[in-house]
Amino acid sequence: MDVIDILKAYSEGIDNEIYASLSTIDPSTLCEASDHLIRAGGKKLRPVMVILSCEAVGGRAEDALKTAASMELIHTFSLIHDDIMDKDEMRRGKPSVHMLWGEPMAILAGDTLFSKAFETVLDTNTENISPKRIVNALKTVVDSCIKICEGQALDISFEGNLDVREEEYMTMIYKKTAALIAAATKAGAILGGGTEEQIEALAEYGRLVGLAFQIQDDYLDVVSNEDDIGKPVGSDIVEGKMTLMVVHALAYASEDDKERLISILQANNEDLVDDAIGIFNKYGSIEYSRDIAHTNIKTAKELLNVLENSEAKKSLELIADFVLDRTH
Amino acid sequence: MDVIDILKAYSEGIDNEIYASLSTIDPSTLCEASDHLIRAGGKKLRPVMVILSCEAVGGRAEDALKTAASMELIHTFSLIHDDIMDKDEMRRGKPSVHMLWGEPMAILAGDTLFSKAFETVLDTNTENISPKRIVNALKTVVDSCIKICEGQALDISFEGNLDVREEEYMTMIYKKTAALIAAATKAGAILGGGTEEQIEALAEYGRLVGLAFQIQDDYLDVVSNEDDIGKPVGSDIVEGKMTLMVVHALAYASEDDKERLISILQANNEDLVDDAIGIFNKYGSIEYSRDIAHTNIKTAKELLNVLENSEAKKSLELIADFVLDRTH
Repeated sequence: MDVIDILKAYSEGIDNEIYASLSTIDPSTLCEASDHLIRAGGKKLRPVMVILSCEAVGGRAEDALKTAASMELIHTFSLIHDDIMDKDEMRRGKPSVHMLWGEPMAILAGDTLFSKAFETVLDTNTENISPKRIVNALKTVVDSCIKICEGQALDISFEGNLDVREEEYMTMIYKKTAALIAAATKAGAILGGGTEEQIEALAEYGRLVGLAFQIQDDYLDVVSNEDDIGKPVGSDIVEGKMTLMVVHALAYASEDDKERLISILQANNEDLVDDAIGIFNKYGSIEYSRDIAHTNIKTAKELLNVLENSEAKKSLELIADFVLDRTH
Repeated sequence: MDVIDILKAYSEGIDNEIYASLSTIDPSTLCEASDHLIRAGGKKLRPVMVILSCEAVGGRAEDALKTAASMELIHTFSLIHDDIMDKDEMRRGKPSVHMLWGEPMAILAGDTLFSKAFETVLDTNTENISPKRIVNALKTVVDSCIKICEGQALDISFEGNLDVREEEYMTMIYKKTAALIAAATKAGAILGGGTEEQIEALAEYGRLVGLAFQIQDDYLDVVSNEDDIGKPVGSDIVEGKMTLMVVHALAYASEDDKERLISILQANNEDLVDDAIGIFNKYGSIEYSRDIAHTNIKTAKELLNVLENSEAKKSLELIADFVLDRTH
């Protein structure tokens, strides 16, 4: 089984939970606006990681299904609100929610998905999973939501500020991206009744995979081709986006190269993408970025050694590799 | 003790919980944007109703304090997002959050307060309150959050639509305003270990008080004076806002009066306020609205008969009366 098969194997159960949760939203406009981005697809990586983490510590997939669904609801909530903030007009190949329903309804759709996420976790059957475990899983989920907000606020604060240290950058992508993946694996382990050691190991696995995921995303923007990633190569550079490569290059480049890179990032000109990549290469920034992602994935997989061998453990290993192997 | 004294007696404990919760938000911009509207004041009616409901069924105030704080966080979250949607520039006598920090940060501040609300409830000490009770209290809170979103979506859908039936209007104000107050009293009763009968009675008490609160708000806009309500009399009419008086008048007015009222509501002209009030009076709409509020409060107080006599019960009765007696 490869990762795509693993994701497919769980997706129907997850989708059923999500759609059951959203079907009761009234009025219908709000229901449709909340539904839109979820129906537009998505790999369901976070939900599947909840279930696998639950199974990997000896729990049952069905007991983690509602919390799995909540991950997709939270992820989608944050995408809808981010698209409003960033004025992004497209998402998953479709117009973003605020483009179709306007900003007020898009804000509400996000808020609704957010509420539904908590409702879904709380709907976990207390005959199978104790309320104490549900409270602990939910604490993990809520904590990651706070971090998502903080990460987005940090990301906004970086705009027009090219004096970002690597540590600050890593904090930002941890909060914005990795915290929810860490919450997925940790909540799964809690629901599955894992030991303290297993819960912490899976949380750290999720954090490292999440960081690698974001770093790889930024890396692909530079080394991939347009057909694979569905957007022009170097679009992060054109948009002046902060990435680990940028942070690294700005820290190590000569004054001249640093000035040149800053002017490229502010120029919004796609003809300058190759120049920027040239500077990245000159200071080993692309390789550095790739190395960090690889090291994270290696460590993440080693952390899984606290688990007994199982199909679920094997799948979590494959997912870790998948983060680096993917071309889009 | 009058209601103002009751609110004052609890406000310090509630404020401490709220500020402790918000103090950890990072970066500081997000912390300040989240904090702003809370520091601008507010009666803390909802939090106090959580505590009183807890005490009224024999529970301890301290066990309800975190859930009480969560009510203010949720209420403030919804105000911040509503102000963005409605483009309201002022709130509690200060510039609204999006006027000071921009829309992206205001969206995030709302999302952060929302997350913090759940974190706060989950922080309830499980040595005093069982996880099962916390789960049940949180279900009540989350359910009201979904209703707040649905109510705001309904309210938006009413804009420019003057063909709203009374039932639809009542559903809207129930979801938008009364559901959170009902959640406050219900969650308090759950945390305090109330019987099923007491929990349901307090939930219904909260719902009725919440409805009366909104109806009274709309009523004051027409019968009060500018000094008391801090805005010109009839501003709802000028803004074309849907109220129970408007719904009633449109249902019972002659075709001519109906047409006239609709044109006034669409005219955005303060010189026409008296004309609209004339139509309300002609069809008894102001009295009707006042009667509904009074009946709700009467029933709400009767529901408290399931409770033993206590200071808390007495305070809940006073709060019910206060909703009608207040002049602003």
